[in-house]
Amino acid sequence: MFGARCLVRALRSCSSAPCPRHKPSARLSVRDALGAQNTNGERVKVQGWIRSVRSQKDILFLHINDGSALESLQVVADSSFDSRELAFGSSVEVQGQLVKSPSKKQNVELKAEKIEVVGNCDAKDSGFVHIHTPIITSNDCEGAGELFQVEPSSKIKVPEENFFNVPAFLTVSGQLHLEVMSGAFTQVFTFGPTFRAENSQSRRHLAEFYMVEAEISFVESLQDLMQVMEGLFKTATTIVLSNCPEDVDLCHKFIAPGQKDRLGHMLKNNFVIISYTEAIEILKQSSQNFTFTPEWGVDLYTEHEKYLVKHCGNIPVFVINYPLALKPFYMRDNEDGPQHTVAAVDLLVPGVGELFGGSLREERYHFLEQRLARLGLTEAYQWYLDLRRFGSVPHGGFGMGFERYLQCILGIDNIKDVIPFPRFTHSCVL
Amino acid sequence: MFGARCLVRALRSCSSAPCPRHKPSARLSVRDALGAQNTNGERVKVQGWIRSVRSQKDILFLHINDGSALESLQVVADSSFDSRELAFGSSVEVQGQLVKSPSKKQNVELKAEKIEVVGNCDAKDSGFVHIHTPIITSNDCEGAGELFQVEPSSKIKVPEENFFNVPAFLTVSGQLHLEVMSGAFTQVFTFGPTFRAENSQSRRHLAEFYMVEAEISFVESLQDLMQVMEGLFKTATTIVLSNCPEDVDLCHKFIAPGQKDRLGHMLKNNFVIISYTEAIEILKQSSQNFTFTPEWGVDLYTEHEKYLVKHCGNIPVFVINYPLALKPFYMRDNEDGPQHTVAAVDLLVPGVGELFGGSLREERYHFLEQRLARLGLTEAYQWYLDLRRFGSVPHGGFGMGFERYLQCILGIDNIKDVIPFPRFTHSCVL
Repeated sequence: MFGARCLVRALRSCSSAPCPRHKPSARLSVRDALGAQNTNGERVKVQGWIRSVRSQKDILFLHINDGSALESLQVVADSSFDSRELAFGSSVEVQGQLVKSPSKKQNVELKAEKIEVVGNCDAKDSGFVHIHTPIITSNDCEGAGELFQVEPSSKIKVPEENFFNVPAFLTVSGQLHLEVMSGAFTQVFTFGPTFRAENSQSRRHLAEFYMVEAEISFVESLQDLMQVMEGLFKTATTIVLSNCPEDVDLCHKFIAPGQKDRLGHMLKNNFVIISYTEAIEILKQSSQNFTFTPEWGVDLYTEHEKYLVKHCGNIPVFVINYPLALKPFYMRDNEDGPQHTVAAVDLLVPGVGELFGGSLREERYHFLEQRLARLGLTEAYQWYLDLRRFGSVPHGGFGMGFERYLQCILGIDNIKDVIPFPRFTHSCVL
Repeated sequence: MFGARCLVRALRSCSSAPCPRHKPSARLSVRDALGAQNTNGERVKVQGWIRSVRSQKDILFLHINDGSALESLQVVADSSFDSRELAFGSSVEVQGQLVKSPSKKQNVELKAEKIEVVGNCDAKDSGFVHIHTPIITSNDCEGAGELFQVEPSSKIKVPEENFFNVPAFLTVSGQLHLEVMSGAFTQVFTFGPTFRAENSQSRRHLAEFYMVEAEISFVESLQDLMQVMEGLFKTATTIVLSNCPEDVDLCHKFIAPGQKDRLGHMLKNNFVIISYTEAIEILKQSSQNFTFTPEWGVDLYTEHEKYLVKHCGNIPVFVINYPLALKPFYMRDNEDGPQHTVAAVDLLVPGVGELFGGSLREERYHFLEQRLARLGLTEAYQWYLDLRRFGSVPHGGFGMGFERYLQCILGIDNIKDVIPFPRFTHSCVL
């Protein structure tokens, strides 16, 4: 990245050129372009991604970001430059004059003389099919006990008789249903409410919350899965920052000063990857006094998650390969030892802790059969086992807590403040 | 609309012109253009709405529809014609040569020489804010008894103690929560699961189904509301037909022959509006032997709904102004008499019956207060009454059953066939 001094030099040399069109333009980062003090129409070149497009009768406005700053650079172009390829997310190289902006919203803007699309961005290409997984289910995906049961209201219920013939619960995850659909559609996702009857008053838990869950067939490594997860976090955040800058600024200004920089830091760095075993080592070597002593085979607590994120420079951290005994039956056996692990991945983010959870799924019939048998779940999950008998494929997926995601990008401390009608133990207002 | 004979004449006169560029082109409907037998590069003009855009390196494909046919006309243009204004839903006038198409997908296509955008279409302009209304609620929106109650699973429940302190249910409608939000956002909608513990094995009912619900502030007449409802039905259907033609064709070809024409008939006609009182008169004068005798003050049954739709020429029918005694407390009193009605509206569609239900809401404090008092609901709905004490506005809204909508456009007889994991009495598979 150019430093501010370097920038001024570049601009000066540029402005002194007698025939700027034939001289190669100085390449500037968005940050340096935004910070330019003397703008006398120097010719520069900026490379980055389009964050917004506004097309008017005679004029075209683009906002370009390259990750060097949270703000974008405004590019003003003649409408003849307009084309369908100048879409949100496309990468471009813009050459033109850096001038003082007539608007109060920004100091400088780039008057485009040449716009080259480096890489197209057609958002429809991602190819994930949206599935509505059911809310009422006869499964208990996590094997946990924190389920809400559903029955017709006591006024109309016939005692000792189930409406659905079997006990029915509110879903804790759409994963198993997504796995059914991923066997036909390859890449699927769901976005909907999920439920936990957790007796928790914490700032990170709700009884009713939303999850984005995705399931991808023919995925064979956690690396591929983590790439999708990191891409989802960064793309979604870029879109939010681009489409609702006023809303985000309001939170950053009045609720979470400094959050803007923290978020920029997360967006411009590659997320860190460490194994669960490495995480335990880091925690053990720490001088911090934890309430819960870190130990291999025991789950990470919030205090541990927060320490790990800080230790990794306040960049989101993927923790992979957890002990088999800690995770549900459907996660893929790594067949290692003596510390036996599964191909699980959690993403920990600053301020919030666990944001994503995911894994490769156990696609091998005999491995899954043995796990279910050991847990006494063979009969209940016969249909799930059948998915491995007919056209089984390596696959994996993940879920992201939506309210925690909002907490993370807006810097809001209490999860009850990012949902209009929060439901938690002792409270169901309206 | 031009007849086929008229078309051939127009084409002939056009093709015989020595200097076609200076002669006004013959205006053709899409239906007539598609049906043209002799295409020798005649110059024609077609007006309609863009249903799809495909932009390639050197060439631009548009599909134009004007309601005269369910199929669209393919327009092929040089990529220099491409502009952001050529978007889905924009109205255009295209002049060019009608030629035989090299593709097997269609007989003819229009080689564009001039494309004029008549009216822009920026889909973001509708201005409805998407709200996630809660699934678990302490209200019973319809005042009906068919509620599912929610409690932690019997394994972990403390008897006689409510998790939420109050009895909690699965939502039957997001309306009341939308009304809260419409007091700040003016136009809001939700799309999510709703629940009824109905002991029904019919082809039109599910225990878990999806609804699109909208609430609009500052709406003072049912006319305005019906315009939004009709627009939603027609726009959504046009988008589905445009984006997923193969999926729709599959259903139309193998499951519901004739449905394509029936749907085209619904799309190109204005929906019919009759009052509940007129509906009862029509039913009474019918020679059909109904199982349930139609009578003022009694609800319409499926057999009545089907008769009314048929009577109105198989076009969707709005039935408005229902008896006050039949409808929930929140619907606006028409202050008429002696047959006392409320400003309610249901939309009945061919094959399915009731698809939408809506109303103006009672925004007048004293009217609502009295209705609640008579029903013994004052205490439970104090918060709702408060919405009329502080900044009350005339408003109204509606809900559309999503699976019934799919039944209607695809021609699928059983609602269990349009949802991947149907839930109904005695069944909760997976």
